Amino acid sequence: MKNRWLVIISICSLLLGAGGTYASFLWILPPGTMDFSKEKVGSEQQATTERERISGLEKVADAFDLIRKSYVEDVSDGQLIQGAIQGMVGTLQDPYSVYMDEEASERFNDSFDSSFDGIGAQIAIQEGKLIIISPIKNSPAEKAGLKARDRIISIDGETVEGLDLFEASKRIRGKKGSVVKLEIARSELTKPLTIEIMRDKVPVLTVFSDMKKNAEKNIGYIQITTFAQHTAKDFTTELRKLEEQNLKGLIIDVRGNPGGMLSSVEDILFQIVTDSKPYVQIEERSGKRNPLYTSLKKKLPYPITLLVDEGSASASEILAGALSEIEGYTLVGKKTFGKGTVQQALPLDDHSNIKLTMFKWLTPDGNWIHGKGIKPTIEVEQPAYFHAHSLQLDETLALDMNNENVTIAQEMLLALGFGSGRQDGYFDEQTERAVKAFQSIKKMPVTGRIDVETAVKLEEEIVKAIQDEKNDLQLQVALKTFR
Amino acid sequence: MKNRWLVIISICSLLLGAGGTYASFLWILPPGTMDFSKEKVGSEQQATTERERISGLEKVADAFDLIRKSYVEDVSDGQLIQGAIQGMVGTLQDPYSVYMDEEASERFNDSFDSSFDGIGAQIAIQEGKLIIISPIKNSPAEKAGLKARDRIISIDGETVEGLDLFEASKRIRGKKGSVVKLEIARSELTKPLTIEIMRDKVPVLTVFSDMKKNAEKNIGYIQITTFAQHTAKDFTTELRKLEEQNLKGLIIDVRGNPGGMLSSVEDILFQIVTDSKPYVQIEERSGKRNPLYTSLKKKLPYPITLLVDEGSASASEILAGALSEIEGYTLVGKKTFGKGTVQQALPLDDHSNIKLTMFKWLTPDGNWIHGKGIKPTIEVEQPAYFHAHSLQLDETLALDMNNENVTIAQEMLLALGFGSGRQDGYFDEQTERAVKAFQSIKKMPVTGRIDVETAVKLEEEIVKAIQDEKNDLQLQVALKTFR
Repeated sequence: MKNRWLVIISICSLLLGAGGTYASFLWILPPGTMDFSKEKVGSEQQATTERERISGLEKVADAFDLIRKSYVEDVSDGQLIQGAIQGMVGTLQDPYSVYMDEEASERFNDSFDSSFDGIGAQIAIQEGKLIIISPIKNSPAEKAGLKARDRIISIDGETVEGLDLFEASKRIRGKKGSVVKLEIARSELTKPLTIEIMRDKVPVLTVFSDMKKNAEKNIGYIQITTFAQHTAKDFTTELRKLEEQNLKGLIIDVRGNPGGMLSSVEDILFQIVTDSKPYVQIEERSGKRNPLYTSLKKKLPYPITLLVDEGSASASEILAGALSEIEGYTLVGKKTFGKGTVQQALPLDDHSNIKLTMFKWLTPDGNWIHGKGIKPTIEVEQPAYFHAHSLQLDETLALDMNNENVTIAQEMLLALGFGSGRQDGYFDEQTERAVKAFQSIKKMPVTGRIDVETAVKLEEEIVKAIQDEKNDLQLQVALKTFR
Repeated sequence: MKNRWLVIISICSLLLGAGGTYASFLWILPPGTMDFSKEKVGSEQQATTERERISGLEKVADAFDLIRKSYVEDVSDGQLIQGAIQGMVGTLQDPYSVYMDEEASERFNDSFDSSFDGIGAQIAIQEGKLIIISPIKNSPAEKAGLKARDRIISIDGETVEGLDLFEASKRIRGKKGSVVKLEIARSELTKPLTIEIMRDKVPVLTVFSDMKKNAEKNIGYIQITTFAQHTAKDFTTELRKLEEQNLKGLIIDVRGNPGGMLSSVEDILFQIVTDSKPYVQIEERSGKRNPLYTSLKKKLPYPITLLVDEGSASASEILAGALSEIEGYTLVGKKTFGKGTVQQALPLDDHSNIKLTMFKWLTPDGNWIHGKGIKPTIEVEQPAYFHAHSLQLDETLALDMNNENVTIAQEMLLALGFGSGRQDGYFDEQTERAVKAFQSIKKMPVTGRIDVETAVKLEEEIVKAIQDEKNDLQLQVALKTFR
């Protein structure tokens, strides 16, 4: 591992519309290959360099002066400088190259940490409300009694209105040992609840394992949600535990995994693919390819099947490429995202960075999958209700109505096996019959109208179906790949 | 007029969604007030200035170097420099401040010309097709027999596919005396037509006048479509002609007029508003206001009514403010756009400019209407069918269908007085009855279905209604303001 470079590959899960969840690769440069420190510029060259720099940017300096002096409002230099850098990066038309100011750099670095000081609750903004998705096991949040779907009204007495997710999580987090006061609304309570929680160190878990069965055989299952700092170490620990139980096969699940640090996926690859081919090839701007190899000589005694989908990007795709092209292992699921570039965070000053695409990476056999993705060996589509929208009623839906909510209800009914004939948003008589059938089977008043109770029941049934492992067709097929 | 400045006010008719039609104000700086020429920097100051410039832009230069050296693809300096300038201008969050490269600068300058060398046909892109809107009167286009709604297939043998409007008009234009060959599709012809047209000098008309009547009284009408180079001169000519016919009132129509050169509206104001108040006040960044006055001492012998709407912006709003606040004249129509800033095109080098917002302008009484617009004295809404969408059928619309085209058809039927009950896109029985009523009155086969013939007839009826002056409610109300 000494010959690795310090490079960061980062992924925006654009496909998922998640609005910028990212993770990154760290990678170590071979000494002397690349150097971005300013100190390296010899002082005898300084004058020339400076003059060159000015001449190249003369026009930018002119524009800078014009705007500062003549714009109708005062403009800060910092604003213009940041704009200039963002403008330059923007011309690259590369969604993975971005200027990161102090806050973005901080956020970026945090995303690789293996733990943080806080209360340990996953939060999200849903319909403009700040919601607890789930408290992490054994975290201060769980011990204090926070529950999934609790709504946070205020933090330390201040309303959360107008806060974005980053701002909100920044306020909830804080030094271990300090206390945060949350005001919580819960649907079964008539009054909001105020809970004081002492912050503690909370681990960021990225690896989850389980032992599954296929025809009496033990099939190990390891899910990797992102490739962060401690991911490889946790993967090793979980794998050892599974291997102790007479493993006949291993499923690795990187569905929805947007990537992360290259060193992380590399440390995993060193344990599971042999050195018969490079696990990845890094291509420089010049076209030169640098193949990288593991040190594993002997193939594992059990086969591996990898679960992938449209959300599997970057590091997940390096894993997919290596498993299938080096060892011929099976990929199950959907075509992957398609991100074949490597970024590094290059410091501009003490506070900001440019995250810049510096390399392409190719699969063991030299394929560049950027914009194309990797096709699974066995393509399996999840049931339609895995993609169902949420129903947000502002009125009871009934015969002859025509709107977006009716479309969603029609899709949900169809997913649950109650065909409504049309899915175009017009509530016709066949839709009414489908609603009645659903209500009758769920032992509700059979009205044929979708009121709040019926809508909630529809959503519950969809969630129940998604959570049932038997309905995870991709997993079921993966289990069957081990004969 | 000697004390005017060289300043450009420019307007994007954003509200209209026209995607960047603009026009601008030229204005003359009092000598010494502002100067952007580089020569003015004293050479004894040069060194300091240069050093200051570098220190301010050190970080930009660093980023410039990093990207040039390390990005995965080659990037040209020009691209990065343009990006930096666009990035700086972008941080101003001002839609009227823009970087204009060579092509944009050229286009910008062309937009003030009083004539051009070409064939004299207004063109547009509709549904992805290049269409002739109308040939200008007495132009080479008209003499060659081009007609409104002709579709241009090729220009000089090359397909127009993929061309934008600017690119297409650039190819049709050319030196006076040269010939352009257009291939034309026309709906009544089975085969395309090839027409050769000799280019000539074609005037850009921005002023259209007419004599109208109200209760036997002569009411002059002058429409100004934009404030370009020759607009004021043409306005004067038309006004003199009207004044010779015993004028009892004058309507000026700036509906949909996005603005233009300040000098143009100023030259018009000098003829119609007195010096009792400033016609406009220019506010500098420091807050200092410069009031500007006409030299007219005596109010005109007839009253003026101004027609305005949401598309009346900038210069049109200066006109509106001056007419109402200085002379108390009536404004009829809808609230204006609301653009209260002044731009100047500042040259960066021989080819490019920054169009920068440098001043605010205030009305005679000191109101800043930016983002607010000017309310008309008498607010008049046009009939709903003035805003009707176009119907693009890919199938015959019939009972039980549910789509966007049905919505549009329902709106058109309602506009023409055939109420269809609902306008939500569901083709119910009442919609069918409305279609039958329309077909019956128009003496068409009464099918209750909207096929191509019915759709064409619906559109024709809407266009007919819009073109009928009697349906221009705003104009009708304006005529009634003269008792």
